[in-house]
Amino acid sequence: MLSFIRFMVLFLLVVIQSAWAQTTDSVFIKNLADEILLHARAYEQLTYLTKQIGPRLAGSAGMVKAEQWGLKEMQKAGADKAWGQECLVPHWVRGGVDKATALFASNDKKGIPLDVVALGNSIGTGSTPLRAEVVEVKSFEDLEIKKERVKGKIVFYNYPFNPTYVRTFQAYGDANKYRGQGPSQAAKYGAVGTIVRSMSHGTNNHPHTGATRYDSLYNKIPAVAIGLEDADQLSRWLTKESVQVQIKTNGHFLPDTIGHNVIGELTGTEFPDEIITVGGHLDSWDNCEGAHDDGAGCVQTLEILRAFKAIGYRPRHTIRFVLFANEENGLRGGSKYAEEAKQKNEKHIFALESDAGGFTPRGFGFTISDAQYQKVLGWQSLIAPYGCSEFSRGGGGADIGPLNRTFNTPVAGLQPDSQRYFDYHHARNDVLEAVNKRELELGAINMAALLYLVDRYGLGQ
Amino acid sequence: MLSFIRFMVLFLLVVIQSAWAQTTDSVFIKNLADEILLHARAYEQLTYLTKQIGPRLAGSAGMVKAEQWGLKEMQKAGADKAWGQECLVPHWVRGGVDKATALFASNDKKGIPLDVVALGNSIGTGSTPLRAEVVEVKSFEDLEIKKERVKGKIVFYNYPFNPTYVRTFQAYGDANKYRGQGPSQAAKYGAVGTIVRSMSHGTNNHPHTGATRYDSLYNKIPAVAIGLEDADQLSRWLTKESVQVQIKTNGHFLPDTIGHNVIGELTGTEFPDEIITVGGHLDSWDNCEGAHDDGAGCVQTLEILRAFKAIGYRPRHTIRFVLFANEENGLRGGSKYAEEAKQKNEKHIFALESDAGGFTPRGFGFTISDAQYQKVLGWQSLIAPYGCSEFSRGGGGADIGPLNRTFNTPVAGLQPDSQRYFDYHHARNDVLEAVNKRELELGAINMAALLYLVDRYGLGQ
Repeated sequence: MLSFIRFMVLFLLVVIQSAWAQTTDSVFIKNLADEILLHARAYEQLTYLTKQIGPRLAGSAGMVKAEQWGLKEMQKAGADKAWGQECLVPHWVRGGVDKATALFASNDKKGIPLDVVALGNSIGTGSTPLRAEVVEVKSFEDLEIKKERVKGKIVFYNYPFNPTYVRTFQAYGDANKYRGQGPSQAAKYGAVGTIVRSMSHGTNNHPHTGATRYDSLYNKIPAVAIGLEDADQLSRWLTKESVQVQIKTNGHFLPDTIGHNVIGELTGTEFPDEIITVGGHLDSWDNCEGAHDDGAGCVQTLEILRAFKAIGYRPRHTIRFVLFANEENGLRGGSKYAEEAKQKNEKHIFALESDAGGFTPRGFGFTISDAQYQKVLGWQSLIAPYGCSEFSRGGGGADIGPLNRTFNTPVAGLQPDSQRYFDYHHARNDVLEAVNKRELELGAINMAALLYLVDRYGLGQ
Repeated sequence: MLSFIRFMVLFLLVVIQSAWAQTTDSVFIKNLADEILLHARAYEQLTYLTKQIGPRLAGSAGMVKAEQWGLKEMQKAGADKAWGQECLVPHWVRGGVDKATALFASNDKKGIPLDVVALGNSIGTGSTPLRAEVVEVKSFEDLEIKKERVKGKIVFYNYPFNPTYVRTFQAYGDANKYRGQGPSQAAKYGAVGTIVRSMSHGTNNHPHTGATRYDSLYNKIPAVAIGLEDADQLSRWLTKESVQVQIKTNGHFLPDTIGHNVIGELTGTEFPDEIITVGGHLDSWDNCEGAHDDGAGCVQTLEILRAFKAIGYRPRHTIRFVLFANEENGLRGGSKYAEEAKQKNEKHIFALESDAGGFTPRGFGFTISDAQYQKVLGWQSLIAPYGCSEFSRGGGGADIGPLNRTFNTPVAGLQPDSQRYFDYHHARNDVLEAVNKRELELGAINMAALLYLVDRYGLGQ
């Protein structure tokens, strides 16, 4: 009986302690949320980054300006220390305005301009435009069927961005191989150019760029993305007659140059050598303001730092706030960050990334152990009131991938609502005006809450 | 032992049947979703409604055009029958462009225009503008303190739209009493006009209208809403000096006129006399396209009808698809619908409304019994993959409120993400371009799934 009473007393103590902790945590998170909703600088910072600095592809003048700005903002937000971590970055330039014109067998006077953008990392056509007949393929399988017909031609990958995937990243995962591998797969059969249907289900005709990767086994051929309306139109023309397209692009690489990860740190009070990382990437494509991709992730990162300082939170572990370099066409920043961590034998206990747009937050995707996942599920009810009610396995982000692969560091990615993302992704309309101030702030709140809980309770093994 | 075996067999049968039903339902809902994501007409219909018809306040020419269009679309979408249900609607007109100018004691030459919009149902200033000194109050409590000072003055309600409420409808519920009751409360103490801070936390200066309600005990005084930037500016001026504002508005009522609820019906195969209602409201304010409020709800309603027909679904119960008249400034359509239902002794088993914008769906709010709520919670996992993962108590919609009050009909409201809603609500920027095609379609999918489940299994008592 005594042991039963002792058990019950202990049990009640645990219950009370746990309830007390939950209350304390929910009060803390509410304070953090109020601080951000009332005083956030994220939207103002994004306004500067997009409107005053603008595009900031690796190697560009915009990159340099953005890094200088980022470092100042880290200091202003209250980092204990802030620095730039040097890394070599590729320096691809578009070299001019990309152009394409459709020309018709039935009427050699008629030329209809197409809205295209060269794929990132692609080679240009040189001073003489490329002109060749177009062969449309619906998929790589279709290319195999038509492989005898593509020599000397332009292959037009008209693979649809599947609207029936409710989560749009699934459609992207499904379609983006045509952007990445399409040009080399076409060159393998002697094609001289590639046109890729944009990875989007937007209701406009903006073409969407993004990195392509040439396979060194085959010729490098020029490659452009085409807007959806033009893609549909080109496809319709091709059912009726032979169509040539004349393409003029100027992409080329300059020598690698110096870029930086911009890092701010709050040094841990109890475990200064155990590091939590949070970040987004500072580079953007050259054809847009990169407001959602990934200006949003950068200013959310800065905002979390500012808010922690503003409410006087001193983390137990060291938290690093990182604006990564060159995510878009090289991942040199994320790679460098993990590499130096390995050289210095750092201990990285968690990393969190925001690189899916500044939209209303819905959840987190976790690449962590079963036991760690059980632990974070216990925090779900604390975070859900701010939007992230959907926790799932899998996820993280490109920039923290190297950390995960190097140390098996547990990682997570913010998952904002994805419906609008591919309307803007890598296209000229990824501008400040597409970002909603509150949605951006709520993303920061949900991330800050998760970071706080990891810092306070750890993730375990 | 035998009875145990019998129990186990029965138990297993129930489990298998239930699993089978869940599978059948999830397959059905997936088909419905694919049909809508691939073939929806909702966005195209919204484009027509907003761009070709435009504003459609009760009594206006836009209302008549919208009703004719709605009836045709009901027929096109495949209603078994479609009709207009006549009702008397109020006919308030703005009567011209609303104007306001700030005038300063320190400089009688300087007049600074303010961006204002007259509140719906408000009286105009007449041909002579109203000019009076402004007294700012922060709340009704503040008005009580300052009541001796407001006689002959314009009361400026500068009550903030609280950004710390994560769900923005909470901020609206908190603030909209100043729009509804503010003018009469000010008139009670002899004020001659009212300026109300817009109910929004947008990042622009658009003023937001909406209905005001005069209390018959007091004088009716002109009332305008002011944009957020102008409200902040006016408040700053008032800390420094006396400011007069000159207001010119022209609002007035014409005699009541005839409007219609537009109704389409799929007649139930098993229970034709048991009615499920789904709808949105066809009217909008006169200063905008009413794309989110509530064009979205209307085209979602039409889309659900179209999709049910397209996949060959014959409902067991009668489903009525309703585009309600005059939600904004009278609720005559919703009231008429319930009234006629009562006269005809109809049996209404469920009603669902979409009137919170065409944004990405997050949940449903239910005003239903405990037992019914337990039942719908059992369907949550079937609907959540399409966005509505958050089920909660409370909610419905203005137009189905009378049905709920008359028959105690269980009601529910679609709850899209609310972060952007009050950026557009009743303001000139509530236009098609603020609506995302997929978000709109997903709203229809979630509603259609819920209607299907209610139709198939009923809600019970």
